[in-house]
Amino acid sequence: MPTINIQLFEGRTVEQKRDYAKALTEATVKVLGCSPSAVDIIFQDVKKSDWASGGELWSDKT
Amino acid sequence: MPTINIQLFEGRTVEQKRDYAKALTEATVKVLGCSPSAVDIIFQDVKKSDWASGGELWSDKT
Amino acid sequence: MPTINIQLFEGRTVEQKRDYAKALTEATVKVLGCSPSAVDIIFQDVKKSDWASGGELWSDKT
Amino acid sequence: MPTINIQLFEGRTVEQKRDYAKALTEATVKVLGCSPSAVDIIFQDVKKSDWASGGELWSDKT
Amino acid sequence: MPTINIQLFEGRTVEQKRDYAKALTEATVKVLGCSPSAVDIIFQDVKKSDWASGGELWSDKT
Amino acid sequence: MPTINIQLFEGRTVEQKRDYAKALTEATVKVLGCSPSAVDIIFQDVKKSDWASGGELWSDKT
Repeated sequence: MPTINIQLFEGRTVEQKRDYAKALTEATVKVLGCSPSAVDIIFQDVKKSDWASGGELWSDKT
Repeated sequence: MPTINIQLFEGRTVEQKRDYAKALTEATVKVLGCSPSAVDIIFQDVKKSDWASGGELWSDKT
Repeated sequence: MPTINIQLFEGRTVEQKRDYAKALTEATVKVLGCSPSAVDIIFQDVKKSDWASGGELWSDKT
Repeated sequence: MPTINIQLFEGRTVEQKRDYAKALTEATVKVLGCSPSAVDIIFQDVKKSDWASGGELWSDKT
Repeated sequence: MPTINIQLFEGRTVEQKRDYAKALTEATVKVLGCSPSAVDIIFQDVKKSDWASGGELWSDKT
Repeated sequence: MPTINIQLFEGRTVEQKRDYAKALTEATVKVLGCSPSAVDIIFQDVKKSDWASGGELWSDKT
């Protein structure tokens, strides 16, 4: 029953998310030995102006 | 002081969220015995292309 | 497919959580019109020394 | 390695978030004694119609 | 900069989490094309009495 | 109404969390112009064996 929440910069395509969800689910099933249907994945797009590292917004990094 | 975060598919109306917040708060007060004012609820709309179950995006399910 | 994360003070019994999960699921099904099996609820117990309101830990409030 | 997730009403400007991220990072470094580069901050804007307190959406409060 | 939060039933060993973190990071790097060092993963163990599906705690399911 | 969730390595004392909650609340009030009572902060302790960066658990880093 893992539920996986992923925060990532916005801009990824649906194709990337489709491939990513498939790959993450396969890795989960392989390591944890659970059923694929037990794996939930939720993507949360984050703007670069909503994410800071080292006290600086990523939209300000050059 | 419960704080309730709800991830749900986008598309629900404000009316539904209004009713839902009211119902969840009533259930919380009844079971936990806290004050209604102590209950915080945050809705997070999720696109079907941002949620996968069984390795497949919900936007791809038919 | 709502996924509900609930942060609450530790100390609630399993009986309370059982009743609470049932009540929240019923409210969800009634308002959103989804199947009960689509509702996931996760409780996260929080110590009073891990929750602050107004800049003060709840374990310090008298 | 603190990761800080902040849910706040939408409407804050990038300038406010820039200042806020800087202030939170400075407070973190000062109290925890970690490196600024270890501090990650993610802002999540929330609509007033997606946040309820006391069973009432903030968009309904007058 | 993906940050991945994983909620899973308690009971997994450190060995499983080690393998799982490695597999998830490899999948992330492969699909998103980011650096491994940009991938943060946080596991949150959840008791079966803190997770309900279909209105029933997993600790009650037989 | 900001709600601030902070994931940090376990091992911080209550004194540190008390100071940290105070500092974060002051920074929030100063930058956002809200009331201190509107600021909620929740700390989530994370074991080094539950946090991975670069595909490696922090408990394995030397």
